[in-house]
Amino acid sequence: MRAMEEKIIAEGTVLPGNILKVGSFLNQQLDVQFLREVGEEIARLFRADGVTKVLTLEASGIAIATLAALSLGVPAVIVKKHASANQSKDVYEAEIASFTHKNTYVAAVAKEYLQASDRVLIVDDFLACGNAIRGLMHMVREAGATLVGCAIAIEKKFQGGGDELRAEGIRVESLAMVDHMTDDSLSFWRP
Amino acid sequence: MRAMEEKIIAEGTVLPGNILKVGSFLNQQLDVQFLREVGEEIARLFRADGVTKVLTLEASGIAIATLAALSLGVPAVIVKKHASANQSKDVYEAEIASFTHKNTYVAAVAKEYLQASDRVLIVDDFLACGNAIRGLMHMVREAGATLVGCAIAIEKKFQGGGDELRAEGIRVESLAMVDHMTDDSLSFWRP
Repeated sequence: MRAMEEKIIAEGTVLPGNILKVGSFLNQQLDVQFLREVGEEIARLFRADGVTKVLTLEASGIAIATLAALSLGVPAVIVKKHASANQSKDVYEAEIASFTHKNTYVAAVAKEYLQASDRVLIVDDFLACGNAIRGLMHMVREAGATLVGCAIAIEKKFQGGGDELRAEGIRVESLAMVDHMTDDSLSFWRP
Repeated sequence: MRAMEEKIIAEGTVLPGNILKVGSFLNQQLDVQFLREVGEEIARLFRADGVTKVLTLEASGIAIATLAALSLGVPAVIVKKHASANQSKDVYEAEIASFTHKNTYVAAVAKEYLQASDRVLIVDDFLACGNAIRGLMHMVREAGATLVGCAIAIEKKFQGGGDELRAEGIRVESLAMVDHMTDDSLSFWRP
């Protein structure tokens, strides 16, 4: 999606530790009109695949998952990073190591929102090493549901997680793929 | 908003400790088509007020804030509960006590996303004692921005936070106001 690359070039900044900051439009401030287009593009890519649920991880995946689900006409389901008093104890869990936060946490989703009959599209803002996606895939498997694929706003391709998933036969669609990133330059990989 | 009351009656459940669980449509699974109507209703209520930013608190406010911002044609800004490596250190902070989670945390928003010229609409899923709203109001004040009002999906009116804010002259619009709640009954207050 050329518009995503242009947005990253115009507004993104590279921080130490291979962190791409896109807080102005993707995960701190939300450029909602732009993210609506992102949601429509994700829906276009997976329109023919009979998706019944969009699955994402709180918090920064929620906005694009919401807008992708809106365009697909299906519900979104949020995997929680932090236990809540109003969440059921009957959950699918996965331990996820965070690249950005340098920690490991147990994420969970209530079983009632993932059914064996579901065809699940995983949506997230970033894909680096793939740990979060693998955690969500584990939950989809536990539920006996079908994974249709993964839609990612920005893949940091040089970190390898996306290509590992593709090598395993998982369909991963990333709207922008960064293949090189330093403090003063950034380039994209295009298929 | 009668549709919100009907949704709560159809899908909500009351848990011990005055917790209203609406995970099937508002904050675990998202009924995105319904939340789109919620966003449109919030936009209708504040259309004439020159809103320039929608401000919400991660994670459960994000979906309705995104859809309200979409209908209003403005960006949404997310106040973070959890510090992140890609967040600026130059932030407005507030200490917030959580009714649901029985803890206190420091929430923060990067200063660059709240300007003195902004006219801010605070959007959240729940209003109980009003602690989260007051934390966000503190950030709006610190930024020198103008608070236009607060739009809430579900107000637990019997906990008093909404009426305290109204008594201080804050415009609080709640799409459903629960005035009584027990394990087997729930009633709404209507102005």
